[in-house]
Amino acid sequence: MTLEAIRYRSGSLQILNQLLLPHETVYEEVRSVRDGYEAIKSMKVRGAPAIAIVGCLSLAVELRAGAGGDDLVSFIRDSLCHLTSARPTAVNMGRAARELMEFTENESMEKNTEQLRDSVIGWIEEMLERDVNDNKKIGNYGAQHILSGVPRDSVTILTHCNTGSLATAGYGTALGVVRSLHSLGRLKRLYCTETRPYNQGARLTAYEAVAEGFPATLITDSMAALAMREKGITAVVVGADRVVANGDTANKVGTYQLAIAAKHHGVPFYVAAPSTSCDLSLESGRDIVIEERPPEELTSINGVPVAAPGIDVWNPAFDVTPHQLITGGIITELGVFLPSELQAALTGRLTAL
Amino acid sequence: MTLEAIRYRSGSLQILNQLLLPHETVYEEVRSVRDGYEAIKSMKVRGAPAIAIVGCLSLAVELRAGAGGDDLVSFIRDSLCHLTSARPTAVNMGRAARELMEFTENESMEKNTEQLRDSVIGWIEEMLERDVNDNKKIGNYGAQHILSGVPRDSVTILTHCNTGSLATAGYGTALGVVRSLHSLGRLKRLYCTETRPYNQGARLTAYEAVAEGFPATLITDSMAALAMREKGITAVVVGADRVVANGDTANKVGTYQLAIAAKHHGVPFYVAAPSTSCDLSLESGRDIVIEERPPEELTSINGVPVAAPGIDVWNPAFDVTPHQLITGGIITELGVFLPSELQAALTGRLTAL
Repeated sequence: MTLEAIRYRSGSLQILNQLLLPHETVYEEVRSVRDGYEAIKSMKVRGAPAIAIVGCLSLAVELRAGAGGDDLVSFIRDSLCHLTSARPTAVNMGRAARELMEFTENESMEKNTEQLRDSVIGWIEEMLERDVNDNKKIGNYGAQHILSGVPRDSVTILTHCNTGSLATAGYGTALGVVRSLHSLGRLKRLYCTETRPYNQGARLTAYEAVAEGFPATLITDSMAALAMREKGITAVVVGADRVVANGDTANKVGTYQLAIAAKHHGVPFYVAAPSTSCDLSLESGRDIVIEERPPEELTSINGVPVAAPGIDVWNPAFDVTPHQLITGGIITELGVFLPSELQAALTGRLTAL
Repeated sequence: MTLEAIRYRSGSLQILNQLLLPHETVYEEVRSVRDGYEAIKSMKVRGAPAIAIVGCLSLAVELRAGAGGDDLVSFIRDSLCHLTSARPTAVNMGRAARELMEFTENESMEKNTEQLRDSVIGWIEEMLERDVNDNKKIGNYGAQHILSGVPRDSVTILTHCNTGSLATAGYGTALGVVRSLHSLGRLKRLYCTETRPYNQGARLTAYEAVAEGFPATLITDSMAALAMREKGITAVVVGADRVVANGDTANKVGTYQLAIAAKHHGVPFYVAAPSTSCDLSLESGRDIVIEERPPEELTSINGVPVAAPGIDVWNPAFDVTPHQLITGGIITELGVFLPSELQAALTGRLTAL
């Protein structure tokens, strides 16, 4: 039974409040775009795919309740604009907003208000379904690729940050690969890093692992290389904030260091990401600006100071792993590709559509 | 002005209570072997060299106050046995106890009780002085070696855990090298890892850096590789729990991963340790057993739970860095040696004595 972070039935949306995890499991009702905005802004929901899904579903719920009146196009435009502003760096919400707005404008030329309402809600519900299905494909492609190297044995996976049901519409990307391995009965053990400074691994991945019954072990980020040497790690699988044309991958800080350690030990290193996270407009990772976050994420935990007062802090939110270190491949819903194959694979797909 | 973690004047000993750092700076009086034992056991003092010094000085203080009566040899033997049992894995206390006992027995053949008392106190005071002087030599040798590669520029150093005044009799080993660079006006910046799970970097190294006025920046352990790529790290310098004959080095967990990242970036990797931390009786690091510590160090901070309940934890206290990755050298009070030179260098010294 997969952990449900997003519970949607037509006209009703509930989300698991991630601010209370791992200590309390509380679902909260999202009744409007305003609720959706607040949930995203306050980080009750996080992870770029999940933000886009919850944002759009909050609009679907409000549309189902009759919001927008006669000027539905304006209402949808204003709502999407507001939702996108909640966390402007989460690219998936911006992309979904553009696509949905284009769809809405096209539909509005042929349909009356109530028909338009239904078709926009339908688009959003399909987006939810497609996202979960894409993740399942990622999980299965990734699991098969990893298992192709070890025909009979069960495997030990190391992951970083949280890329599971809590970060996506459901199932997960890198953690979706782990979920597939587990459902095939081939997951020996998952090692998850605590993922300093925001502890998504200790709080969220560990929570999902316990909820799903994965055999799983928490380690500090600093123990990953030792785990590779001592614990027989079969593969490292991580998610991605953005994969650019040459395969360079921006992801949670610490990913780069894991990739170096994996290379040193000859452990295959995989990035799992839907094709919507691939940005072919950038040629290499050198063009990605590294966002820096507040020092307090390192100097205090739950508001309690843990570091010496007065120390300077460097807190980059993510890092860029060069494609040369992505030795296993990039796992998408279209298959597993070497970084050098990615651009052709995705372009081929775009042509075929 | 060097931070004083141990304040000793003949007959009086005060230690900085490290359990209260970095938030409170409180010195506590150590009046007896019993006080010394309690300070070590409760971790008010930590770091293998500092434990040995505080243990022996607590004996010196009690001897100066007249303890032991006529059967001084038995009193000293019982005291050293008790002190060694406070943290049995801290090798330096055991070594100091053996050497002091041998000295005491030899002296007792020629001297009366009061002469013996004076000479034992003298031995301990010399040990304190020698330890600080050895650290200063380590600092100067290390600084010169690092600067020999960069004739004019100031340098940026990355370190791990705490190896400063708070871990030694004073001055420090790896942090002593940083101190020497700073006093030469050649330290551009120190990067210190927070050193999960026990946060010695965030609590103690950052505290020393602020107290000494080093330009210093705190990072998570996971950011070290990124710092090497983005921040122009000149060298990585760490301490050691134990260096064995071939140069393999046991040190705080995370050291191995740092060494791999340093190798990947072509950044020289140094181990700074007094020759007393070198154990030529072991041929390679494979023979070192990795101690595992309680899961609570990862799952809670200051008693507050931070990880998902029910998750398994692996918490090795240290790791072993193979000598091939120690590319800068091993910095001792006798000079800087390549791992392959260490055994001959130390054996030569032992012959010369």
